[in-house]
Amino acid sequence: ITLLTDFGTEDGYVGAIKGRILSKDPDIKIVDISHTIPKYDVRSASFNISNFVDYFPKGTIHLSIIDPGVGGKRKPLIIKTDNFVLITPDNGTASFIFESYRCEIFKIKTDWLKWVISDTFHGRDIFAPAAAELAIGKSIEEIAVPFEGEALTFVAKAKMIQNNKWELNVLHVDHFGNIITNLKKNQLEKNSDLKNCRIQIGKIFLHGIKKSYSDVNKGECLLLWGSSDYLEIAQNKGNANAFFNLTDKKKLFFEF
Amino acid sequence: ITLLTDFGTEDGYVGAIKGRILSKDPDIKIVDISHTIPKYDVRSASFNISNFVDYFPKGTIHLSIIDPGVGGKRKPLIIKTDNFVLITPDNGTASFIFESYRCEIFKIKTDWLKWVISDTFHGRDIFAPAAAELAIGKSIEEIAVPFEGEALTFVAKAKMIQNNKWELNVLHVDHFGNIITNLKKNQLEKNSDLKNCRIQIGKIFLHGIKKSYSDVNKGECLLLWGSSDYLEIAQNKGNANAFFNLTDKKKLFFEF
Amino acid sequence: ITLLTDFGTEDGYVGAIKGRILSKDPDIKIVDISHTIPKYDVRSASFNISNFVDYFPKGTIHLSIIDPGVGGKRKPLIIKTDNFVLITPDNGTASFIFESYRCEIFKIKTDWLKWVISDTFHGRDIFAPAAAELAIGKSIEEIAVPFEGEALTFVAKAKMIQNNKWELNVLHVDHFGNIITNLKKNQLEKNSDLKNCRIQIGKIFLHGIKKSYSDVNKGECLLLWGSSDYLEIAQNKGNANAFFNLTDKKKLFFEF
Repeated sequence: ITLLTDFGTEDGYVGAIKGRILSKDPDIKIVDISHTIPKYDVRSASFNISNFVDYFPKGTIHLSIIDPGVGGKRKPLIIKTDNFVLITPDNGTASFIFESYRCEIFKIKTDWLKWVISDTFHGRDIFAPAAAELAIGKSIEEIAVPFEGEALTFVAKAKMIQNNKWELNVLHVDHFGNIITNLKKNQLEKNSDLKNCRIQIGKIFLHGIKKSYSDVNKGECLLLWGSSDYLEIAQNKGNANAFFNLTDKKKLFFEF
Repeated sequence: ITLLTDFGTEDGYVGAIKGRILSKDPDIKIVDISHTIPKYDVRSASFNISNFVDYFPKGTIHLSIIDPGVGGKRKPLIIKTDNFVLITPDNGTASFIFESYRCEIFKIKTDWLKWVISDTFHGRDIFAPAAAELAIGKSIEEIAVPFEGEALTFVAKAKMIQNNKWELNVLHVDHFGNIITNLKKNQLEKNSDLKNCRIQIGKIFLHGIKKSYSDVNKGECLLLWGSSDYLEIAQNKGNANAFFNLTDKKKLFFEF
Repeated sequence: ITLLTDFGTEDGYVGAIKGRILSKDPDIKIVDISHTIPKYDVRSASFNISNFVDYFPKGTIHLSIIDPGVGGKRKPLIIKTDNFVLITPDNGTASFIFESYRCEIFKIKTDWLKWVISDTFHGRDIFAPAAAELAIGKSIEEIAVPFEGEALTFVAKAKMIQNNKWELNVLHVDHFGNIITNLKKNQLEKNSDLKNCRIQIGKIFLHGIKKSYSDVNKGECLLLWGSSDYLEIAQNKGNANAFFNLTDKKKLFFEF
C-alpha cells in the first residue's frame, strides 16, 4: 500500500492511518509517498500520482487522501486498472489516471465497517480500512459496488490554438521550483521540428529545448522535457518559479 | 516500533535511530509517525500520541523522543499498558496516556548498553536500543526497574466554571490550522442539549456544532467534534488559527 | 536500502524511486533517512551520511541522491567499504566516507538497464535500480566497473593555525539550529587541557565545554562535543544559528 496525503507530518493523523492498516495485518507493507501535498490541492495530487504508479509492482494498492470535501457528498472510490488499484475520494484526484489507463470504478460500501465513522476523518475510518482489506486479499466486490454516474475529472492537457502554437497551463511546481506545464511530449507529432521552438512567459522568451539542467550555466533558465515527459521550465541550480513569479492566471505560449 | 520525534528530517539523526534499531534485528518493523513535532513541544507530542495509539495492533512499541532535557536529570521511562508500550523521557509526554490507560511505569537501566552514552543523543544511545530489545522479545524487567516517585504529567482537561459553562484551552493546532480545544465529548453529560451552544473566542461567537467541514461554505468558520472527539474550531478550506490569531493566553468559553 | 535525497516530499519523485526498487523485489526493505537535505547541498549530505552509516547492520546499501549535476558529466558511483555500500553521484557526497573508511570505488554501467534513461532523473533510472540489484544479491561487478580517476572530495577538517589555536568552519546547521563545526574530538591530543578553552564567534567568546544542553539555563549558549564528536555551538532550548547569525564566510577560532 502506498500513501499519499496532505495531512502534513506534525500531527498524529498519518499515524492513525498506518495503525488502522497494520492492525488488520502487521505484515502489510506501507510505503510513504508524501504527506505534504499542498493542502486541499487535488490537482497537484492528481499529477503526482501519475508520476509514480508506473514504477510500482503489479497489484500495488495506492491510497490517496486529499479530501477537502470529507463528510460531504463526494463518494469514496476504488479505481481498478490492469496493474494497480487507486483508492481516493471522488474529487478529481484520479483525473490523470482516467486519461491514461483503462479503469473500472467502484464505490466503497460502509456496511462492513465495525466502528463509528467520524465525519472529519474518512481516511482513518473508511479509506485506510478498505486498502487494508484489499491488501489481505479480499476482492473489491466484497467491500464496494460498481460506481454509477460519472467520476469527477478535469481535463489537463495543453491545447493547440494555431498550427504548431500551443497554449499551456502550469500543472505543478515541484520542490526545486521547476515549472511543469501540461504539454506532454506525445501530444506533438513525432517528427516535429523543435529546433527553433520557443516558449513565451509574459514578456520573456526561452528558446530551444535542452536535455538536462546542467546544459546551461548556473542561474540560467532553460526548457526541457521533464522526467515524466512534460515540458518543464527550469533554472540550473535555481528556482524557476521564484524567478518568473508565475501566477495561476498567466498563460504560457509555446510555438515552433 | 512507531517513531515520534522533533528531530526534523534534514539531518542524519532519525537515520542513526533507525540504524540502531535495525542493527539489533533487520526484520524489526519501524513505522514513522512524525519527525516534525514542534521543537521541544512535549504538550503537542503528548496530544498527538493519544491520537494514534488506539489504532495500532496489540503489542506495538511506541517510541517518542521529544527530549529538551537530554543529558539532565529527567529519567528514561517505559510505560506499559494493556495494549502497548510507550518509551519516552519523563517530561510529560505521557500525560494523556496516564489519564486514559492503566499504566505500569519503569525506568530504563543503562548497565546493559555496550557503548558510550552521548550526553546529547539518548534517543540513539538509550531509547532506541531499549525499543529494539523489547521488539525482539526481551522482557521489560531485563532492561528496566520499576519507577519510584511520580512521573511528570500535566492535567489538560477543560474545566466547568458554571453550570453548562466551560473554560477551554487550546490543546493543539493541526496542519490545517484547526484549533483543537481540551473539551472532550465525554466530559459533557450524555443528554446535554447543544442546540443553542456557542463558543466565545475573544469578541467573536460561533454558534452550534456542525458535523463536518463541508457543512458550511468555503471560508466560513465552524465548531465540531474532531476525529478524536475534542471540540475543534475550524474554517472550511481555510486556516482557523490564522483567522482567529489565537495566542496561548487567550481563553475560550463554551456554553450551552 | 536507506534513502537520502534532496527531493522534498511534495512531489511524486520519492515515490518513483521507491516503486522502482520494490518492482525489482517487493520484499526489499527501504528506510527513509531524509528527503529534505537542503537543495543541491552536497556538503550537508556528506556530513549527514557520516552520522548514521555506523549504526546500520553490515551489508546495508545506502542510496544518496543529491545530484545537481544530473545529466552532465559526473559519474554514478558505487563505493564499497567493509561494512556497507554507498551509491551516489560523484560530486563530493562521499567525502566523509572517503576520509574514514577503506573504500573501493566503482562506476555504474548502464548497459543492463532496460529503459530509456531520463536526462533529469538518474535517481529513478540508474541509482535506484542499481541499489535494487545489489539488494537482491547481485555482485557489484555485474553492474559496475572499477572507477578510474579520482573521485571528487573536499577536505573538511579544522586546521591548527598555531599551537592549540584552530581555525574552524561550519559543517552543518541542524534542525535545532545547533552549529556543528569541523573540529572533531579526535583531532585534539588525547590529554589536551580544555579547562580554559574558548571559541571566538565574531566578537563573542564562549568559554569552556559543557556536557549537555541542559547544563546551562534556557536561552544561554554553550559549547559541547555533539553526538558525532564534532565541536558544536548550541543554545539551550533555543536556536544558536539564529542567535549568532553566522554566514558561511565568518571564521571561527578555537583555542585552549
